Amino acid sequence: MSDYVGGYRREAPLDLASIFLGPKGENADVFERLLLEAFRDHVFWRRNFHPEDGFQVMEMEKHTPEYERSLSTLSTELMGLLGELKAGVPFFSPRYIGHMSSDLTMASLIGYFATMLYNPNNVAAEASPVTTRMELEVAEQLARMIGYDTARQWGHLTSGGTVANFEALWVARNVKYLPVAVRWAAEECGVAGLTVATPTGERMPLDGMDLWQLLNVGPGESMDLADAFRERLGDDERVVEALAKHSLAGLGYQEFGRRLSTQFGDALQDGAVLVPSTAHYSWEKICRALGIGGAQLIHVPVDRRFRMDPAALEETIHALADRRQPVIACVSVIGTTEESAVDRLDLIADVRDRVGRERGIAFHLHADAAWGGYAASITRSPDGRRRSYEDALADYAPEAWPEEGVYRGLCAMERTDTVTIDPHKLGFIPYPAGAVSFRDMRVRELVAVDAPYLFHRGASEWGYIGRFIFEGSKPGAAAAGVWMSHKVLPLDSSGYGRLIGETARGALLLHRRIGSGDWGPFTLIPLPLPDLNIVCFAIGHPALATLEETNDFAGRVYAAMSVSGDRTARQLDYFVTKTVLRAREYGHAADPILQSLGFSYDDYERAGGVSVIRCTVMDPFLGSRRGRMDFIGGFAKTLRSVLESVL
Amino acid sequence: MSDYVGGYRREAPLDLASIFLGPKGENADVFERLLLEAFRDHVFWRRNFHPEDGFQVMEMEKHTPEYERSLSTLSTELMGLLGELKAGVPFFSPRYIGHMSSDLTMASLIGYFATMLYNPNNVAAEASPVTTRMELEVAEQLARMIGYDTARQWGHLTSGGTVANFEALWVARNVKYLPVAVRWAAEECGVAGLTVATPTGERMPLDGMDLWQLLNVGPGESMDLADAFRERLGDDERVVEALAKHSLAGLGYQEFGRRLSTQFGDALQDGAVLVPSTAHYSWEKICRALGIGGAQLIHVPVDRRFRMDPAALEETIHALADRRQPVIACVSVIGTTEESAVDRLDLIADVRDRVGRERGIAFHLHADAAWGGYAASITRSPDGRRRSYEDALADYAPEAWPEEGVYRGLCAMERTDTVTIDPHKLGFIPYPAGAVSFRDMRVRELVAVDAPYLFHRGASEWGYIGRFIFEGSKPGAAAAGVWMSHKVLPLDSSGYGRLIGETARGALLLHRRIGSGDWGPFTLIPLPLPDLNIVCFAIGHPALATLEETNDFAGRVYAAMSVSGDRTARQLDYFVTKTVLRAREYGHAADPILQSLGFSYDDYERAGGVSVIRCTVMDPFLGSRRGRMDFIGGFAKTLRSVLESVL
Repeated sequence: MSDYVGGYRREAPLDLASIFLGPKGENADVFERLLLEAFRDHVFWRRNFHPEDGFQVMEMEKHTPEYERSLSTLSTELMGLLGELKAGVPFFSPRYIGHMSSDLTMASLIGYFATMLYNPNNVAAEASPVTTRMELEVAEQLARMIGYDTARQWGHLTSGGTVANFEALWVARNVKYLPVAVRWAAEECGVAGLTVATPTGERMPLDGMDLWQLLNVGPGESMDLADAFRERLGDDERVVEALAKHSLAGLGYQEFGRRLSTQFGDALQDGAVLVPSTAHYSWEKICRALGIGGAQLIHVPVDRRFRMDPAALEETIHALADRRQPVIACVSVIGTTEESAVDRLDLIADVRDRVGRERGIAFHLHADAAWGGYAASITRSPDGRRRSYEDALADYAPEAWPEEGVYRGLCAMERTDTVTIDPHKLGFIPYPAGAVSFRDMRVRELVAVDAPYLFHRGASEWGYIGRFIFEGSKPGAAAAGVWMSHKVLPLDSSGYGRLIGETARGALLLHRRIGSGDWGPFTLIPLPLPDLNIVCFAIGHPALATLEETNDFAGRVYAAMSVSGDRTARQLDYFVTKTVLRAREYGHAADPILQSLGFSYDDYERAGGVSVIRCTVMDPFLGSRRGRMDFIGGFAKTLRSVLESVL
Repeated sequence: MSDYVGGYRREAPLDLASIFLGPKGENADVFERLLLEAFRDHVFWRRNFHPEDGFQVMEMEKHTPEYERSLSTLSTELMGLLGELKAGVPFFSPRYIGHMSSDLTMASLIGYFATMLYNPNNVAAEASPVTTRMELEVAEQLARMIGYDTARQWGHLTSGGTVANFEALWVARNVKYLPVAVRWAAEECGVAGLTVATPTGERMPLDGMDLWQLLNVGPGESMDLADAFRERLGDDERVVEALAKHSLAGLGYQEFGRRLSTQFGDALQDGAVLVPSTAHYSWEKICRALGIGGAQLIHVPVDRRFRMDPAALEETIHALADRRQPVIACVSVIGTTEESAVDRLDLIADVRDRVGRERGIAFHLHADAAWGGYAASITRSPDGRRRSYEDALADYAPEAWPEEGVYRGLCAMERTDTVTIDPHKLGFIPYPAGAVSFRDMRVRELVAVDAPYLFHRGASEWGYIGRFIFEGSKPGAAAAGVWMSHKVLPLDSSGYGRLIGETARGALLLHRRIGSGDWGPFTLIPLPLPDLNIVCFAIGHPALATLEETNDFAGRVYAAMSVSGDRTARQLDYFVTKTVLRAREYGHAADPILQSLGFSYDDYERAGGVSVIRCTVMDPFLGSRRGRMDFIGGFAKTLRSVLESVL
């Protein structure tokens, strides 16, 4: 155990139960005390700001009907709200293993509330002198965990994973077409002799490259090229104007495409975006919105552990190159939404290196670690250094977690260009808190727009986040929530690493119980061991003759174990959710499940997919047997009774 | 006064001071009581959910070093946070008239906090059975205030105005190119004989239209066409597939553009987006991101009240038509960020009707009412009916507010296709809370993507907002905050109307004081009377010989009255901000200011713009003289002393 070093016990590790309000509000006293402290502290801050102004409301005025009616409305409506909220979902309970929701860290809740009273707006430091700094700090912490060079990285919080992924691809698109823009801008400005480093390691003159070569300059090399152009011209303002005039973002896709045809006699095929077939549904939305097109989103097959198949990726890239279709970006998923699968990002990054070296192909590499990003904390020791796999493995014994490929995948995030990580997922932080990290801060200039009322040259320029991001006004409270939580649970093996390890332990125990085989006459077929903490399983029964009937049965099991319009959370013992491994995306990855269920691939294609019950384990107490309750045993009992009654 | 009807006093109106925590925390007692109520209520909800589970933490365990160390870290870090937050900005004070920030309604703060404890995720009702309903309710309230048919509208909350505007234009883009997609899809599916209603009032056969005509079908008629196609084919799934296959969103801009050229022998000019020159900077960002291109964003001149010039708009549209450039959307601003100017949306909608009738031109009409949307509450009486202008005017006597054009502009929001309104601006609600309203709910199908783990056919389908929006996970707490606030302050003349009227009154008083003329030797030149509640003014002095020096002086005045790295809020008496009326965008709208300052248009172009001090009045107490302090007088005094010391 990592708590013991050379036989001596180190500083006592955190008791994870102290992090949360607790399933029964076990820490209500501390929470309440701190909540009041935060509130009163704020009130007295108000009182102490220009006390000479006096009060706006005299005590007597509060007893007028106008005043009393208003406060009475407030009380009444709040009581109404509190009553309604009780129809909500008990995410805080170990009994909830449905969607990606759970109890939250007290630090983030209190930090959020304390800051919300000040309502800072992180669009610009002038409206958030404190929380803009916190946002940049947590972005740096995340970058450090990933393994980016903190002196060169840039990152910030977003409203969630979709916006974070959107920004990453938005930047990737702009970087992809940057060499073309520089070529045209340099021609216009009479700058000759620029050269570019190609993926094969040569240097080529910019004006000697064909379109295929221009669209296969690496992301870093594209930015170097823009820098060289800037240096040669020596006039920053003119560079910005010239690039805007010739860039995809400036011209728009239609005009840019037209010029590609005119100038190169060949607009090439459309830029493609490669994702594993397990990628989140928002990627299609993002490709459509950015004008890339849903059809240009290419699903790369996954293996039977639901990880992107590196060989299939390499084949896909070669096939695209054969028909001269450039790749804008390749997205790897660290913790799939359905299965918590972690791509072998190390092998994927190897593929990128290889196709670059051998065939001159370059593209942006993004890690969609919205779900699994925080798990990278297990790879860091408290001093920030990368730990050995063996050390990490020892932490979670006797469970054999993490699997070595998972560990390698997490470590390889440092080889990407951008990463999405959602604090409001495995950071146990309230919505809204997504985050995006960029390896190279220079790219932010490619999406910058100035606001005349915000961009004042001078002192406050340092913290004008809004200039470089997609969103505008945004809650500083979210930054404070994340910041507080990272203070209490650092992004290393002693903090978030322990918490996430506990959720993985719970998932492994649940997986074992599902796979235990004593479910007759039902057959429960779990997906392979989860890489992180989501357990899915299919359900078979001799009476379910077709895959359609089997899917329908899973749907009814799910309905009996989830909140719906006519049944509130109160009435349920355990909560799960459901998903469909769709044939169109999953292909043969689901074969073992089909075989166990006794169905063919034809059945699969006809039914469109196979439905599985999905259990997300975020509660560190699920498998801990800490209290008097055996939740995994209880879940199994409830599940059996649901199975029987639903059949 | 509206409180008196036929000589009798109606129910006592709200005392607005009861809505806020107050500049000195005057309502701290009520706030604290309700806060505790909300917290304890939640804790006991946890205790009462399966009480048989028992506690996860025993009292004894709390006294272990592991536990105590953790809670001590939490306390220490919170105290640190509270200390840091005191370097924040006192938005709650009438002394703060800088950015668009102020005190917040207690209802929204407590509602947000109470709900955050439950952390519902409004991506799907299954994870937010209560707050999804609230979100749809507040969206309907906003639509009703706007004047949309509530049976046909669709709307939802966003993280802010940028995302709301983005969604509106995303939809507008997809609707614009829909007739082309239907034409191709119908050809493929062998559906002949479809007809389309044109803006001139005829019906044309779809397959007889040229590209220009296809790109000039009205938004509603485009959706009707898609419906007719769906009805004729009678196979919903096939319709969705066929449209995806031929749509801009599905194909991507590059491929779609290629096909336009091939099939019509003419890809036409790029689609344009028209905005007033006062439009928010995010519109450029949005056009770039959507692939429309920054260059296709066309700024229409504004008049000297900073409202889009309807005649200039009409000219622009004709000029575009002359070179066969279709218009994707026209954006009208209801409450500009710099001046709070309200476009004459009634006249703009007339232009749209006219160019449609007379020249067959159609486009999407959007109101960017992020700032001014809530002001439409002044046009509604508590029973929901539209009030007469005279009634509204009488409410705010003796101030002559609103000006009639403002009133007409607010009422004309009902003639748009989409509206952006930010509750986190004039709704006095904490970040993040933007909102977008769509006149025609059918358009949401054009951006829908299904998530296999969320989209379960069956009971919970009703509330799956995530299917139709850009973002994914989002705080249900934000919906509850807005919902609570609308309960206390309804969206009519008795609620938000009164509050916003008070802010306008404060702005008018401030404007009068700035324009009072006793500033010698300085000349203070206010912009024209504000439409809503933002006051801007330029500053001249005989010693300031050039516009550059004048702008620099304004910059130093701003610096002396705002927070910066080396001076905290504590040290300031009053807070303002600054903006630049940039020559590139504002053109001759700034002429009167230049004349008063004694500079020419050439000076203006050379300097790039004219800097003005900008005061956003959100505090209803600024001009009320409610307490002992005369804030407007105090501001004038501070301003004079700053002017003198900075010179």
